[in-house]
Amino acid sequence: MAQGVRGTRDFYPDDMRVRNWLFERFHSAARAHGFEEYDAPVLESEELYTRKAGEEIVGQLYNFEDKGGRRVALRPEMTPSLARMVMARAGALALPIKWYSIPQCWRYERTQRGRGREHYQWNVDIWGMDGVAADAELLSVLVHFFESVGLGSGDLVIRISSRKVLEEVLGSLGIEGETFAATCVIVDKMDKLPADVVEAQLADLGLGADAISRIRAVLGLTDLDALSSALGEGSAAVAELGALFALCDAYGISDWLAFDASVVRGLAYYTGPVFEAHDRAGALRAICGGGRYDKLIGTLGGKDLPATGFGFGDMVVMELLAEKGLLPDLASGVEDVVFGMGAELRGAAMQVAGRLRSGGRSVDLVLEDKRMKWVFKHAERCGAARLVMVMPDEWAEGKVRIKDLGTGEESAVPIEDL
Amino acid sequence: MAQGVRGTRDFYPDDMRVRNWLFERFHSAARAHGFEEYDAPVLESEELYTRKAGEEIVGQLYNFEDKGGRRVALRPEMTPSLARMVMARAGALALPIKWYSIPQCWRYERTQRGRGREHYQWNVDIWGMDGVAADAELLSVLVHFFESVGLGSGDLVIRISSRKVLEEVLGSLGIEGETFAATCVIVDKMDKLPADVVEAQLADLGLGADAISRIRAVLGLTDLDALSSALGEGSAAVAELGALFALCDAYGISDWLAFDASVVRGLAYYTGPVFEAHDRAGALRAICGGGRYDKLIGTLGGKDLPATGFGFGDMVVMELLAEKGLLPDLASGVEDVVFGMGAELRGAAMQVAGRLRSGGRSVDLVLEDKRMKWVFKHAERCGAARLVMVMPDEWAEGKVRIKDLGTGEESAVPIEDL
Repeated sequence: MAQGVRGTRDFYPDDMRVRNWLFERFHSAARAHGFEEYDAPVLESEELYTRKAGEEIVGQLYNFEDKGGRRVALRPEMTPSLARMVMARAGALALPIKWYSIPQCWRYERTQRGRGREHYQWNVDIWGMDGVAADAELLSVLVHFFESVGLGSGDLVIRISSRKVLEEVLGSLGIEGETFAATCVIVDKMDKLPADVVEAQLADLGLGADAISRIRAVLGLTDLDALSSALGEGSAAVAELGALFALCDAYGISDWLAFDASVVRGLAYYTGPVFEAHDRAGALRAICGGGRYDKLIGTLGGKDLPATGFGFGDMVVMELLAEKGLLPDLASGVEDVVFGMGAELRGAAMQVAGRLRSGGRSVDLVLEDKRMKWVFKHAERCGAARLVMVMPDEWAEGKVRIKDLGTGEESAVPIEDL
Repeated sequence: MAQGVRGTRDFYPDDMRVRNWLFERFHSAARAHGFEEYDAPVLESEELYTRKAGEEIVGQLYNFEDKGGRRVALRPEMTPSLARMVMARAGALALPIKWYSIPQCWRYERTQRGRGREHYQWNVDIWGMDGVAADAELLSVLVHFFESVGLGSGDLVIRISSRKVLEEVLGSLGIEGETFAATCVIVDKMDKLPADVVEAQLADLGLGADAISRIRAVLGLTDLDALSSALGEGSAAVAELGALFALCDAYGISDWLAFDASVVRGLAYYTGPVFEAHDRAGALRAICGGGRYDKLIGTLGGKDLPATGFGFGDMVVMELLAEKGLLPDLASGVEDVVFGMGAELRGAAMQVAGRLRSGGRSVDLVLEDKRMKWVFKHAERCGAARLVMVMPDEWAEGKVRIKDLGTGEESAVPIEDL
């Protein structure tokens, strides 16, 4: 018997209602902040992703050769597609642009760990703006979303740092450019991999034991003053983070935020502020993550343009919402169930349904000969508000019988009043 | 420079607004009829599609081998995925089910004819119901949609026939089962391919010149009485079509419909009524198409269940809407542009934006130092209704200056009244 591809999900109507509920809140938070929706194909050229920094996302590419011999991939993330789109209209777009999307993203792991191979990822990005005001705006979008689903700052925290922190530490050790990006990818895994594995990987990049212990010390900081002491008075990282937290104060979202130098993010292309949200209990993987990536277009052969954004998967937040009892119990959306008593009133029931539908109601018309008992059970299962019955006596008088399924009241209503 | 995969589309915000406008009307027509949304992964096992009837859709499969050696495909159509989902919950689903979806579907052609390799296809299906009432309900959904986008029965026609017509003609010639399905696929191409090509293909299936001329004669009919004469008094095809047109009369949608025996549809799995919509001018490809497919699950290894549905691509209808001048001119959706005069009012502007956003407004906050002239131009480009200016004097009095961009009127409004 035919089965779905391993690691993919089907969305039956029950699941789809919850997905739509979540996505509608993604849309709302983005639109409240004036972001416009865009989309790109799920299939892209492989070369869009083949960076050399050892990222997990590149190693797990769902890639293949098409019938024309081209190397293509199901996108693992949206940002490179967005960069491609911005490049293609370079000069023609009025900057800054504030765009969002909810693409499905794919990965392929050979090892099976019960993890999915696809998820949806809300992406929100600002291009063409230097400065932390753009990053603060993104954080405001996040908080708006969290509040809209009933989560509070007691449930989760958005941890913030900057790639400039590591840049300054590594720069003082003479590590820059591609090696810097590769180091960030490794350092991001520091608390997930055994110490000797991480140290061996860093040693491969030319970092000795002293450098590693200096990185560990700075990454342990969760206080901007301590960071300032560690990096020195003129630190650009400290100045940037100070300005970002000050702006977030003006937004009134400081309760949701914390400085945490251990936030690095696992993608190679970040250049400035980086952040990720975690449940306060620390039981789940990151809920979302993002940051500034001012040099991505350059790596794709275009002219650099400042950019910042985040990706927000649909899976972890659903776990958190379920755990907190915040998932809604959603009905089918059907408002009226229309039922014609007997085959000779089938046509009349169609007329009634048509009239209600033209008026904007969501109407389920019972299309078969069914017993009254089935119809009542069906209306209840749909969560319908009303049962509209086309019966011989009432129809002869130009009326239908309507039962309010909330109150149980029944009345005969003239057809022209529907 | 990185480019998109050939035959795929990017949706910039301008394009996305129109797509959302179209999809929202797909959603509305389905919901008005009590259909529930579902979704399935774009990637499926290849075996879900490898029927042997010579269909174009199977020949153009966008298929490949994944890293685990499995044959997979980007879905060319949604119906097999839906069948798979229904099979997986056979017995647990309350029948009938009325489901819809707007999936992206893919195909791969070696020959390049400037045709796309992906499109979106609205799918609306009813499972678990025998009888033409279900088919009539689908036609009602279609008409509801057409009306909602401003198309009338003078713009297009839904041509209807039944696979039973050909079944009766071919049955009298001893052609049944898989050969019947393969014959339908060829016959569907009769007016698109040269006569000798079609005749050679039909001859391969065992049809002689007499059979072919009999098929041509019946397929030329556009009148149910003539069909009745051709197929004989007891014809199930004639009875079925008569009942369907009678029900559509009750729906009040007869103006949109026409019997046309030449409608066969190119998919192997149809078993009963089939239909497709065409622009009356005949300039475009089919706008949508569908029909009854009661035996699809059997071919996938499950127990047959009656089913009927249609697929409706996003491309042809957009051509028709553009041609008829029915595409809307859509603004960005931004309602308010908020602007703080100078860096020291940046924080104040963030507060103002936050208050408006909490109140449900879509607000674009100007995050950079810009001149007033730029801000006005920007607000105009967004199509915003209001410009909300945070200025030193007004702010000192707890007010902001609001310019109504429709009327041009300006007023100072206390913050608590926003």
